[in-house]
Amino acid sequence: MGACMPQLLLNCDMGESFGAWRMGLDDQVMPWIDCASIACGYHAGDPGCMRRTVALAAAHGVRIGAHPGYPDLQGFGRRSMACSPAEVEDMLLYQIGALQAICRAEGCEVSYVKPHGALYNDMLAQPPLLEAVLRAVRLAAPGAPLMLLAGAGNPGHQALAAAAGVPLWLEGFADRAYAADGALLPRSQPGAVYHDPERILAQALQLARGEPISTNGGQSLQLQIDSLCVHGDNPESAAVIRRLRQALQGL
Amino acid sequence: MGACMPQLLLNCDMGESFGAWRMGLDDQVMPWIDCASIACGYHAGDPGCMRRTVALAAAHGVRIGAHPGYPDLQGFGRRSMACSPAEVEDMLLYQIGALQAICRAEGCEVSYVKPHGALYNDMLAQPPLLEAVLRAVRLAAPGAPLMLLAGAGNPGHQALAAAAGVPLWLEGFADRAYAADGALLPRSQPGAVYHDPERILAQALQLARGEPISTNGGQSLQLQIDSLCVHGDNPESAAVIRRLRQALQGL
Amino acid sequence: MGACMPQLLLNCDMGESFGAWRMGLDDQVMPWIDCASIACGYHAGDPGCMRRTVALAAAHGVRIGAHPGYPDLQGFGRRSMACSPAEVEDMLLYQIGALQAICRAEGCEVSYVKPHGALYNDMLAQPPLLEAVLRAVRLAAPGAPLMLLAGAGNPGHQALAAAAGVPLWLEGFADRAYAADGALLPRSQPGAVYHDPERILAQALQLARGEPISTNGGQSLQLQIDSLCVHGDNPESAAVIRRLRQALQGL
Amino acid sequence: MGACMPQLLLNCDMGESFGAWRMGLDDQVMPWIDCASIACGYHAGDPGCMRRTVALAAAHGVRIGAHPGYPDLQGFGRRSMACSPAEVEDMLLYQIGALQAICRAEGCEVSYVKPHGALYNDMLAQPPLLEAVLRAVRLAAPGAPLMLLAGAGNPGHQALAAAAGVPLWLEGFADRAYAADGALLPRSQPGAVYHDPERILAQALQLARGEPISTNGGQSLQLQIDSLCVHGDNPESAAVIRRLRQALQGL
Repeated sequence: MGACMPQLLLNCDMGESFGAWRMGLDDQVMPWIDCASIACGYHAGDPGCMRRTVALAAAHGVRIGAHPGYPDLQGFGRRSMACSPAEVEDMLLYQIGALQAICRAEGCEVSYVKPHGALYNDMLAQPPLLEAVLRAVRLAAPGAPLMLLAGAGNPGHQALAAAAGVPLWLEGFADRAYAADGALLPRSQPGAVYHDPERILAQALQLARGEPISTNGGQSLQLQIDSLCVHGDNPESAAVIRRLRQALQGL
Repeated sequence: MGACMPQLLLNCDMGESFGAWRMGLDDQVMPWIDCASIACGYHAGDPGCMRRTVALAAAHGVRIGAHPGYPDLQGFGRRSMACSPAEVEDMLLYQIGALQAICRAEGCEVSYVKPHGALYNDMLAQPPLLEAVLRAVRLAAPGAPLMLLAGAGNPGHQALAAAAGVPLWLEGFADRAYAADGALLPRSQPGAVYHDPERILAQALQLARGEPISTNGGQSLQLQIDSLCVHGDNPESAAVIRRLRQALQGL
Repeated sequence: MGACMPQLLLNCDMGESFGAWRMGLDDQVMPWIDCASIACGYHAGDPGCMRRTVALAAAHGVRIGAHPGYPDLQGFGRRSMACSPAEVEDMLLYQIGALQAICRAEGCEVSYVKPHGALYNDMLAQPPLLEAVLRAVRLAAPGAPLMLLAGAGNPGHQALAAAAGVPLWLEGFADRAYAADGALLPRSQPGAVYHDPERILAQALQLARGEPISTNGGQSLQLQIDSLCVHGDNPESAAVIRRLRQALQGL
Repeated sequence: MGACMPQLLLNCDMGESFGAWRMGLDDQVMPWIDCASIACGYHAGDPGCMRRTVALAAAHGVRIGAHPGYPDLQGFGRRSMACSPAEVEDMLLYQIGALQAICRAEGCEVSYVKPHGALYNDMLAQPPLLEAVLRAVRLAAPGAPLMLLAGAGNPGHQALAAAAGVPLWLEGFADRAYAADGALLPRSQPGAVYHDPERILAQALQLARGEPISTNGGQSLQLQIDSLCVHGDNPESAAVIRRLRQALQGL
């Protein structure tokens, strides 16, 4: 049985509907996760959707994270935008604050921040953007951790986070193939995303036990993670989350 | 003289720029007002503009109000939209919260809420919308007052506000003509907006002294107000605000 | 067999996805309809979605209509907005023109115009808005008909359309209950929308044969229509469209 | 005296207001230019603004160009966005078509296309994006030229344009400093933008006469241009345009 299990939080992107459009099986997934990263209106999520999602998370005792993105509904926040660090800082304050007021209305709070899509990737790669994100997290939600990808870049990320006084939560993926350097294989590459539930469960358990996983080149990769990111877009993936939760509890 | 003067706060819509577009002479007006109603991104104001405006208000010791509107940049929030009370409540939580986080980043806070444009008018006329606004204010900013138009509808407004546990601040206009029932003459009517600085100052002083003002029909109208709404769109109106401030101090 | 059948065109709202969000079963519905009313980006539909939908319609020989709406993605164009006639005219030119260029790129054209949602309802009720819509149709797509609801208001609509030089196409609904005056029962009322395929088919055939239908009060209502509006949001309704097409061909 | 003068068209970005926000002195500038590049709603310009600008251009006999941009009102289209070539192609069809319908309503037409801001720069630097732009121009406005920056990259641009069957118009700047390779000095560099009217006029006349200009390093640079881009943001720059027009006529 793993004393480390409480630390391996399952996080999932939630509240990604917008207006009349539905995305994600939030109702089916929420009972099985620990952390809901909720879209804040810039790439997905309108105020009503945010409130319903916050209420659902609160009802299941799930921690709420702000999931801010670039201002790009048409592109779902997946297109990198050449925003300045000051612009990134301010758009994060805006989105985090909007979610905080909605949480307050539902008697809960924003516990962490995880940027979305292209902003997540840009922040990992560009130190001035990461510094902007860290400033926004500290100013809008003092004490709340920033969630980012476990991997080779972490020493640099951790130095900036320590300087900013923001804790980091490192996340890993059970359904993605890793390269030897700990980077995720780009989705455009074949085999980048696992669809076989057994394979996903196996990698999840390795990560949960602190065991090395296999990279796409067959090397062994050791990752230290605080949280496992899962996806609940379709009935199959929602079912995997349920099995994953049960497997982790059985450790 | 005038122990009542501290209560007659000058409030002005601020932060109404958006992206590369500039509106309002915020720099010239901020030194002379008490309350800055700052646009929150739905009808005007982007995160960077909001932050600059908040910092400017804080530097001048001006109280900050959230100035939320309908989601209509193209129409500057001036077109009524058939939103449900729940939609209005949630969009207010969103906008107030966004401004609150930006205030927190600048070491200040949101002290009151004043809806903008068509939402302001709709709220005055439709009790279910006013109730939605009141719920949002109490949930997002407990204790903060809602600012609305002094006039004939106030008894009804006050009953709803009392039930919701939200204080009201009543505002009047020095540069607008009033009808006999205390309603503002619609802008579409000739003479609805005063441009003569002397006339504006005279009506301001009457309101400040608690004296009756003249309606457009020549009747006498007694209004009890907490705040005077001023406009700083052009150099002339900004100059009037400065003179108004000086006149009020001389009372 | 009915010589009138070619005139009873099946029309369906199409291209209502936006960015990463999917709506409607366009692929399943397109083979069975005559007219695709394609969203133009203001309430739904982005340029890529518009182009895919236009190409799909062209591949099936389906006539393309512009389906413009209010600028309200969050509300899917279902919330009435107090736009001036000039604003409505210009936003229709904009949206129709955008779809026309996309049609040109795919070797086809916009054959008719049918406003969406709240704009459709507002146009039926407010003559100055209908006049604005008619002006936009004539200016952007000379000769193209405007599609609107068959019913009691038609004499007035037809007078304005004749004055503007725009043909009208009148549409009816097989899956909606009618009031005695020919108005649609509001969706908020119980029984307003039929879900029983047999009932939908029966009403469709009555309309196709020019026979009277039954109102919700049990009266007999005679409607003269050019087109039948169908919905393809879910597998059941898509299946009804296929049966409807077959039933109409069997007449 | 220059027989080539008729070819040196003055072009200016126009119609960059949005909703209640005003930008540019279109009324003062339109009488003195040959080509108005009109924003199409994605980075600036709403349908009403587009129509007023088109009518103004038509009244002065000024050719109208579509000035499409990235979908980024907050950033005024100045932030590069990682859009795919297909996305760029479709968003150009959309914006060009929208302006074409508005032109049709005013009895005129779109004569050329000039992308805006970051899209302009990205198109110059990334051949797949330039190919996407060229496809959109040919499909939406067959025969219309694409306007782009005269400079070192032109041989490559011209090869792609020839393959696509789209004429190119090369433009130069009278108020910008050039590097030795014909690139514009970035605005962030000191001295990148000229403010001295005499210097602007001098460079304009050199370009008009086909004479070499001086780069920021003092070298001589020979540019072959079809059009001169001018800016009319403030009274001073509008006055320069008038003098420029007179100087060109006096050649």
